[in-house]
Amino acid sequence: MKIKVINPNTTWEMTRTIEQAAISVKREDTEIVAVSPELGPASIESFYDEYLAIPGVLEEIKKGETEGVDAYIIACYGDPGLQAAREVTSAPVIGIAEASMYMASMLAARFSVVTVLPRIKTMLEEVVANYGMGHRVLNIRTTPMCVLDFERDPIAGMEMLRQEGRRAVEEDDAEAILLGCAGMADFANDLEEELGVPVIDGVVAAVKMAEAIVDLGKKTSKHKTYKFPEKKEYIGMLTSFGSQ
Amino acid sequence: MKIKVINPNTTWEMTRTIEQAAISVKREDTEIVAVSPELGPASIESFYDEYLAIPGVLEEIKKGETEGVDAYIIACYGDPGLQAAREVTSAPVIGIAEASMYMASMLAARFSVVTVLPRIKTMLEEVVANYGMGHRVLNIRTTPMCVLDFERDPIAGMEMLRQEGRRAVEEDDAEAILLGCAGMADFANDLEEELGVPVIDGVVAAVKMAEAIVDLGKKTSKHKTYKFPEKKEYIGMLTSFGSQ
Amino acid sequence: MKIKVINPNTTWEMTRTIEQAAISVKREDTEIVAVSPELGPASIESFYDEYLAIPGVLEEIKKGETEGVDAYIIACYGDPGLQAAREVTSAPVIGIAEASMYMASMLAARFSVVTVLPRIKTMLEEVVANYGMGHRVLNIRTTPMCVLDFERDPIAGMEMLRQEGRRAVEEDDAEAILLGCAGMADFANDLEEELGVPVIDGVVAAVKMAEAIVDLGKKTSKHKTYKFPEKKEYIGMLTSFGSQ
Amino acid sequence: MKIKVINPNTTWEMTRTIEQAAISVKREDTEIVAVSPELGPASIESFYDEYLAIPGVLEEIKKGETEGVDAYIIACYGDPGLQAAREVTSAPVIGIAEASMYMASMLAARFSVVTVLPRIKTMLEEVVANYGMGHRVLNIRTTPMCVLDFERDPIAGMEMLRQEGRRAVEEDDAEAILLGCAGMADFANDLEEELGVPVIDGVVAAVKMAEAIVDLGKKTSKHKTYKFPEKKEYIGMLTSFGSQ
Amino acid sequence: MKIKVINPNTTWEMTRTIEQAAISVKREDTEIVAVSPELGPASIESFYDEYLAIPGVLEEIKKGETEGVDAYIIACYGDPGLQAAREVTSAPVIGIAEASMYMASMLAARFSVVTVLPRIKTMLEEVVANYGMGHRVLNIRTTPMCVLDFERDPIAGMEMLRQEGRRAVEEDDAEAILLGCAGMADFANDLEEELGVPVIDGVVAAVKMAEAIVDLGKKTSKHKTYKFPEKKEYIGMLTSFGSQ
Amino acid sequence: MKIKVINPNTTWEMTRTIEQAAISVKREDTEIVAVSPELGPASIESFYDEYLAIPGVLEEIKKGETEGVDAYIIACYGDPGLQAAREVTSAPVIGIAEASMYMASMLAARFSVVTVLPRIKTMLEEVVANYGMGHRVLNIRTTPMCVLDFERDPIAGMEMLRQEGRRAVEEDDAEAILLGCAGMADFANDLEEELGVPVIDGVVAAVKMAEAIVDLGKKTSKHKTYKFPEKKEYIGMLTSFGSQ
Repeated sequence: MKIKVINPNTTWEMTRTIEQAAISVKREDTEIVAVSPELGPASIESFYDEYLAIPGVLEEIKKGETEGVDAYIIACYGDPGLQAAREVTSAPVIGIAEASMYMASMLAARFSVVTVLPRIKTMLEEVVANYGMGHRVLNIRTTPMCVLDFERDPIAGMEMLRQEGRRAVEEDDAEAILLGCAGMADFANDLEEELGVPVIDGVVAAVKMAEAIVDLGKKTSKHKTYKFPEKKEYIGMLTSFGSQ
Repeated sequence: MKIKVINPNTTWEMTRTIEQAAISVKREDTEIVAVSPELGPASIESFYDEYLAIPGVLEEIKKGETEGVDAYIIACYGDPGLQAAREVTSAPVIGIAEASMYMASMLAARFSVVTVLPRIKTMLEEVVANYGMGHRVLNIRTTPMCVLDFERDPIAGMEMLRQEGRRAVEEDDAEAILLGCAGMADFANDLEEELGVPVIDGVVAAVKMAEAIVDLGKKTSKHKTYKFPEKKEYIGMLTSFGSQ
Repeated sequence: MKIKVINPNTTWEMTRTIEQAAISVKREDTEIVAVSPELGPASIESFYDEYLAIPGVLEEIKKGETEGVDAYIIACYGDPGLQAAREVTSAPVIGIAEASMYMASMLAARFSVVTVLPRIKTMLEEVVANYGMGHRVLNIRTTPMCVLDFERDPIAGMEMLRQEGRRAVEEDDAEAILLGCAGMADFANDLEEELGVPVIDGVVAAVKMAEAIVDLGKKTSKHKTYKFPEKKEYIGMLTSFGSQ
Repeated sequence: MKIKVINPNTTWEMTRTIEQAAISVKREDTEIVAVSPELGPASIESFYDEYLAIPGVLEEIKKGETEGVDAYIIACYGDPGLQAAREVTSAPVIGIAEASMYMASMLAARFSVVTVLPRIKTMLEEVVANYGMGHRVLNIRTTPMCVLDFERDPIAGMEMLRQEGRRAVEEDDAEAILLGCAGMADFANDLEEELGVPVIDGVVAAVKMAEAIVDLGKKTSKHKTYKFPEKKEYIGMLTSFGSQ
Repeated sequence: MKIKVINPNTTWEMTRTIEQAAISVKREDTEIVAVSPELGPASIESFYDEYLAIPGVLEEIKKGETEGVDAYIIACYGDPGLQAAREVTSAPVIGIAEASMYMASMLAARFSVVTVLPRIKTMLEEVVANYGMGHRVLNIRTTPMCVLDFERDPIAGMEMLRQEGRRAVEEDDAEAILLGCAGMADFANDLEEELGVPVIDGVVAAVKMAEAIVDLGKKTSKHKTYKFPEKKEYIGMLTSFGSQ
Repeated sequence: MKIKVINPNTTWEMTRTIEQAAISVKREDTEIVAVSPELGPASIESFYDEYLAIPGVLEEIKKGETEGVDAYIIACYGDPGLQAAREVTSAPVIGIAEASMYMASMLAARFSVVTVLPRIKTMLEEVVANYGMGHRVLNIRTTPMCVLDFERDPIAGMEMLRQEGRRAVEEDDAEAILLGCAGMADFANDLEEELGVPVIDGVVAAVKMAEAIVDLGKKTSKHKTYKFPEKKEYIGMLTSFGSQ
């Protein structure tokens, strides 16, 4: 099967990291295609970046419809555009936040998320609430590092995650740690060993969820919410998103 | 004061309807500027349309920053891009869904929303939950008419709203009706008279909320969630959304 | 338009402070009438005071019906008697707690309340829950000062608010501060400047909400919950509250 | 032990009915004193009546402090003034709504409330939410009969309760019925026999709860929320409620 | 009346302690029979123990049906098997957690639970949520002592409860303390005196609730959820739990 | 990898059906071992059956620890004993209810459950709430057929599911259907074709989730909640569940 992993930001170094993470856990017969959109922000650290990354994500989904894609993964922890993506394809589309939370829920009763800048906290609180995970999430821990800092200085990144991860276990009494950013997969295994609790990276969780769903031949429901969008005109730069 | 009302879709006939509604309730010293973005969908009836309307909304906010705008209104009932919009300006930004719900809460204990196509229901349920209004909203009633149908055939539109509005009062025991689409302002007064309960149009509610907040000199908080976005590169069609 | 601001306690010095706050933000064509009831407690710091302030509030509303009042404000942060007040008039009635929370929600994603004595905390928690604001309110911070202490010793009051406000920003990461008592309006602007986040006083927020609603000609819904009370006999001191 | 049952309305016929219900279940060594306040409404069917009944309730609690009362019951289904009552005494104070819901929760997984006029529904929804019983209560069923109608025409009252009770069992699949008004105790046993599910009258539930708590020597907590009210001046008709 | 108190663990010393607590508060005409099951764990400190204690509890309920029992109490703070127990008898069955929380709710607005090992916290959080008490419970405080430690070394146990109880009052601002284990009844009175807030032991609370319900002649509802189990075959060690 | 599927009831015909369902979706390199416990009920249709099935489930988990099992599935829709099972192994343990709900959440915004007897409804409502899925589940639809009826008369079973499934789509507007019983896997595909929405069987969903988690090498967290149970004595029939 072919899984298209969309890194909603346009930093291809990060896309490569994500691709490596995805490939490292895929089954032999799974093909991973990891891409960044051709438009949008270099990283996502605000609602502004989040929403402006979505056109690129949707374009990649639409392209995927002619590329024989069996499932899509949106590889950014806010799951940007997830519900819209489900409208434009009948293939399953999986967000890394939801994948990580559902997987964590099958391994641990309570957990904490460790993520990037403090400003992202409100967005993740809403994500957690929308997935019904409010009673499971003990804390959303932020760091002073932005998304690309983890890419640029992985040693400092690891140290930061170690620090907050340890505090999650010791202060929150967290039973698992969720890495709240797509580029952190590299750190998961080392961190897990150090902290002694499951450390879940959303990208790898999502790859396995995608394989699971595709194996079953399940498709996105086209009844009510995720019906294909109504045909209509789009104008300006977004003309190509419309349909006649 | 100058209030910029952004109709997130690109149908200028609807923008004119919205503008008229806004002007009809503004104070003498308030200037209303109603616009549609230069890019995006002709109407919004799915998560797809919703998200793809946001770049246009954000562009209009950014333009507004050099136009002496005192407050912005996002005139589509899903409040598309509201949180991102708050990041790019320190002027207040008000969504018509939130404005209508807060105003309704000061006039009625329980209410129902009447809106367009059934597929929009999940989106509005999430909006209601995010605003903490779940205990107040009795029902979200949909119609078989899409957004532009109300524009094209106002007589059928009025009849449909009358029908669902009446059922809201009789079956839900609704104490007020919220019109769940920006283009419905014209119908509000007649409907209110007929049904005998407050009928709230979001656009006019938002105009008054904007005047209220600007009068007080209050600005969007720039602490944590709504800080200005981090400077970063954007590519492709969205290059202009980046900052150096 | 004429707005009657009812300070539910009987301390006229405080009523004057509240009146000044209201006048300072009213529009030119708005008339503010601020009163204390002729019966009831000198201040409200318990459920006991809260409930015993309500007869006076309702009497003032009833008087208002012959005074050409267009909207009422209940100026005590527990919004005492708000729902009953809505039953006895078809004019809008606005509580300062609801007004401040709705306004804050349009300016900040998360906020904290700073109020008087610790015993008031449970009451405000219930108010917050009833308005669906539980996910927005980070903390309800109390002080060792009672209501009238702020009146008597404004310098100490300001210092106390400054202290708790600063802790709200630094410890709760609050994006706005709500002043949880009607007599604190004087402190709002200075505090806002100092803390760098919006500081919302409920009285001024309520005045602007009232103007907004009256401008639109909206009335309290008389369907179901806020119907006029059934006619019936009242006895004892409260005989005048009955109807034949 | 001496239990003072306060019927918050001033209709002594109803107080006698309540007293009979209380006496019919009390233990031999329990003394029941049932009273109506000397001030207030003849019946309670709105927030207006609810709040205006509270001064009378509080006066009766205060009188009780010199009458050797061991526990108080507030016998109206909205539990009017319950939290204030707990402030003015260290004896336990029990509301009939809470007593009936807690007792029902020990006998049935899900239940419905049958009560008087439709307008009361919002009030009872808030009561249910404040007691954390939202997941247990299937429906709040109203009737076209007001409080005193049940007193005046018990045959019609019984028929109405039978009808709504039956629909609660058949349509809601209710496992118990709660009688949402103090004057309905007489109907409970017959109804229970007819419907085949527990029918809980709040007055008798509260009497037994009161005996239970007094037996244990438990008192209302005087830490934080229910501390005695601060000493302060009251004026007008309510002067006697103040303290010097 | 005859109340059968079932200590779900098989440590008879603890059953004796529980029996003493029950007897110390029972009414003269109440007979207390306290038992441990003939099968199951010596103590309950995990979901594993919890579930494996249930067959013994159910066996004791079934035996009770021929022993003239009027009400049952399940004396372990997780209320193990409570809903199943309600299926096999029409007598009331009361859990000590629910009894203590309902009683506490009539005496204090907010409270904390003090219990045994940290691992039990998730279980109690679920119990609290299922009873709708999430808004009342400030904290679930654990200790490093296991269930039987309190039995073996009551002096250390008392010291531990004193410590955590004091922190509950001082740090959580708790208005009452709930003892989250059946064997702690002995400590309640001393602790209450020391801390100055109600300290509620579930066993004594449950005895009084049972007396209250039996006095009223109320039975467990046999409609829907708590119907007698369907007749069916059981095999292996549990053959005797089946019916032909 | 080896997945042990535990049918908590002792009806081996049903276990074979479940095994077939599991085998039909497993990957080539996955080994499925499906068992019924040696003790317990022939079917599960009450809390009584639910709890009495758990000892058998736990015994099978314990046996599995020496059988080289990589993951366990509990194949009954109430997920009986799931949390206890997680305590006794470090291998992942997956319930079919949670697996089906998490999978459905990635394919459909809102869904309904179709299950067996009405009495099971409360249990499933609690399961849904504990998994945070209350906002997604539109309805829990019951049938007059018990668990084994579906085994004995599959034609009637299919008809019943078709009927309720259709009503779920038409009346609830459900976007997916969850089969609320382990023995219904056979019906899923036909039903899905007929209804045009995803029909999710928990057993097959759980098999794929198990493969996903085992692929990643993730284990149940042994921090706090799911630590191995404390060593202790068990007596009677359950002696073998203890440890020295």
